[in-house]
Formats: sequence, C-alpha cells, structure tokens
Amino acid sequence: MIYTFSINTEKENMYDITKNVQKAVDESGVKNGIAVVYTPHTTAAITINENADKYVVMDILFGLNTFLHNRPEFLHDEGNSSAHLKSSLVGCSEQAFVEEGKLVLGVWQSFFFCEFDGPRTRKYMVKVIEC
Amino acid sequence: MIYTFSINTEKENMYDITKNVQKAVDESGVKNGIAVVYTPHTTAAITINENADKYVVMDILFGLNTFLHNRPEFLHDEGNSSAHLKSSLVGCSEQAFVEEGKLVLGVWQSFFFCEFDGPRTRKYMVKVIEC
Amino acid sequence: MIYTFSINTEKENMYDITKNVQKAVDESGVKNGIAVVYTPHTTAAITINENADKYVVMDILFGLNTFLHNRPEFLHDEGNSSAHLKSSLVGCSEQAFVEEGKLVLGVWQSFFFCEFDGPRTRKYMVKVIEC
Repeated sequence: MIYTFSINTEKENMYDITKNVQKAVDESGVKNGIAVVYTPHTTAAITINENADKYVVMDILFGLNTFLHNRPEFLHDEGNSSAHLKSSLVGCSEQAFVEEGKLVLGVWQSFFFCEFDGPRTRKYMVKVIEC
Repeated sequence: MIYTFSINTEKENMYDITKNVQKAVDESGVKNGIAVVYTPHTTAAITINENADKYVVMDILFGLNTFLHNRPEFLHDEGNSSAHLKSSLVGCSEQAFVEEGKLVLGVWQSFFFCEFDGPRTRKYMVKVIEC
Repeated sequence: MIYTFSINTEKENMYDITKNVQKAVDESGVKNGIAVVYTPHTTAAITINENADKYVVMDILFGLNTFLHNRPEFLHDEGNSSAHLKSSLVGCSEQAFVEEGKLVLGVWQSFFFCEFDGPRTRKYMVKVIEC
C-alpha cells in the first residue's frame, strides 16, 4: 500500500509532515519496520531535521540559497537549476524506523517536505516495510 | 537476489539507468514494494532527477563543480577529494516505490548513475523489497 | 529488532562503524537483505565513503566546512546551523545490501557516523530487512 499526501507550497519552505507519516504507519498496521517517505518531484526533497526552533529551517533554506544559488552559466531555461541541484543533494527520499507502531525519531527530529521551486501543489508518498 | 549492472563512464556524467532498474523489478517478480539502487564506489553516486531536458544534468554537474570544487588544501593525493565529497552529498543509494510491477516515478523523474571521477568501468546494484 | 549503538564523539569527525553494522547483521540472522543505518540526531549524519586513506575523511570534513560554513546571517542561536545543514545534505540514513550474511560493500567502502557538532554521546541504529 502506498499512502499519498498532497501539499500546497509557497515559493520555498520546509513543511513538517511527521503527523502524516505517522498516520500512514498507523493505517499500515505495521508494528515494527521502516517508514520510507518519497516525493515524485525533481525540485523538491524529503529530509529529517530539527522541528523545535523555526530558525533552523530558515537557516537551512538560507544556507542552500547562499551556497547553491543559481549561476549565470546554467543552461536549463526554466531558471530553476538551483532547485534541481538542491533536490539531488537533499534527496527525494528519507526513512525512519518504526517500533511498536510509532516512528522512532530523535527528540528534535521531524520529517520535512522541502519545496525549492513553488508555489505548487505537490505530492509525497509513504510506504511501510515490516521487518 | 541482487541485480548487478556494469557501466562504462566518461570523466564525469550522469547516466539514466531507469530501464535497468525496471528490468530488475521485472525479473524480481515483485508487484508492490521498493526498488533500492546502490553503487559500491566512493567517487560515484545514485540520484533521481529530471530526464527531460539534458541541460538539467549539465547544470547539476556544473553546479557541483562550482560549489564543491577541489581545494589546494585537500590532502588525499589521488586529487579526487571533490568527487568523494560529491559522493557523500548525493549519496550511494536511492530508492523508489513499485506498484503493480512498475516503478512509481514522477513524470520527469529518472534514476541516474553519477560518475564524478571517470572514465572507469563501474557497477550499480538493485534489490527489490516486497512490501 | 533495532540494534542500537553508542559513540562518544569529538568536535567533528567521521567514525568507521562498519564492524557494528556487520555485528547487527550477524545478530539479525538475515542472510539476504538490506542493512539500514540511522542516526536520531539533527547535527550528525550517516554516510558511506572511503576507509583506506584517512585524508579522504579529512578532506570531506574540510570541504564541508569550507563550502557550508556558518554564516553571520544565520538566526538559530545555538550557532550550529552549519551542522544542521550538513546533516540534511549528507542524510541521517544510509543503506547497503547483505548477501550470505555479509554486507556487500565496495573494496574501499565503509559506513561512517558523521559528527558535525560534538563532542557528545551519540546513538546510531541498525535494522536489517530480509529480501
């Protein structure tokens, strides 16, 4: 079973999607395993990082823009090559363990959907491996 | 079962390997699950990104070279530390879901083998989890 | 079963944890599958890279510091936003295949626990999928 979720994004942001990942785990009925989160977009990504201080997300986005900004030499005429680059570096999937039906995340960890080229209506999907 | 593929690479490029990943899924007989792609090299990587406009790949490679170039301070005497760094940032594995025997990729998504320090004969491997 | 390991880290380093990952594979009894390694921290990461020349690790750490350094514009007042950024780019999980009870790593590959904001006592966890 693939659990699919939609999200309406801004130009650029990171959205805490942990509740929906846990919901997929709940619906799967898997007690022990691995939850894999995937996004089918090439200018977005999935990551796990800090959920406590909103400045962490702001600094990650600012850092990515500072260090991986668009370059005048880029050839792709949609002008979003920086977003494609971020997508491959952060990655389109991330995973966490499940124990007794609950995601085993660190105290400060959440799953985030990363939008690098919005606003758009985006999708992300969850699958749970029993193991 | 591990499905292993060989690829002859240039100095640096990203190769669309989606057909071989789908071939591994076909041979596995798994209808619903996750296909995991892995490369056993430390100056290469696996990613998923856009397959439509070849300039996206060119911009990603150019961007990685611009932002993660070799530095005179690097100590590793093979002179390819930039390629090792790219390998850890892009990652040596990526995965996508399988539904009814088909990879569930976005419209513009393909799996890519990333060569950062060729030319060489390289390997990548696929395993399919049923779940 | 989740196999959990502790590690005491320095300010910043990459630690070869392959022996413990193999130990988890051994204890799991899984002969063919995938070993997934995860860290529940937001300023650390898991990667696979070269284990032969210690300068590779030093160059990766130097490269990350050079290219993803802290910026005066960062807002998170713990002053470790660079470490959060590295964590999302390298990633909090990595995986390798298992065949006949052994990790299928390349000749030069090892699993590494990456500390970007130590010294601390950290954890990493291993789960083995049979497939």
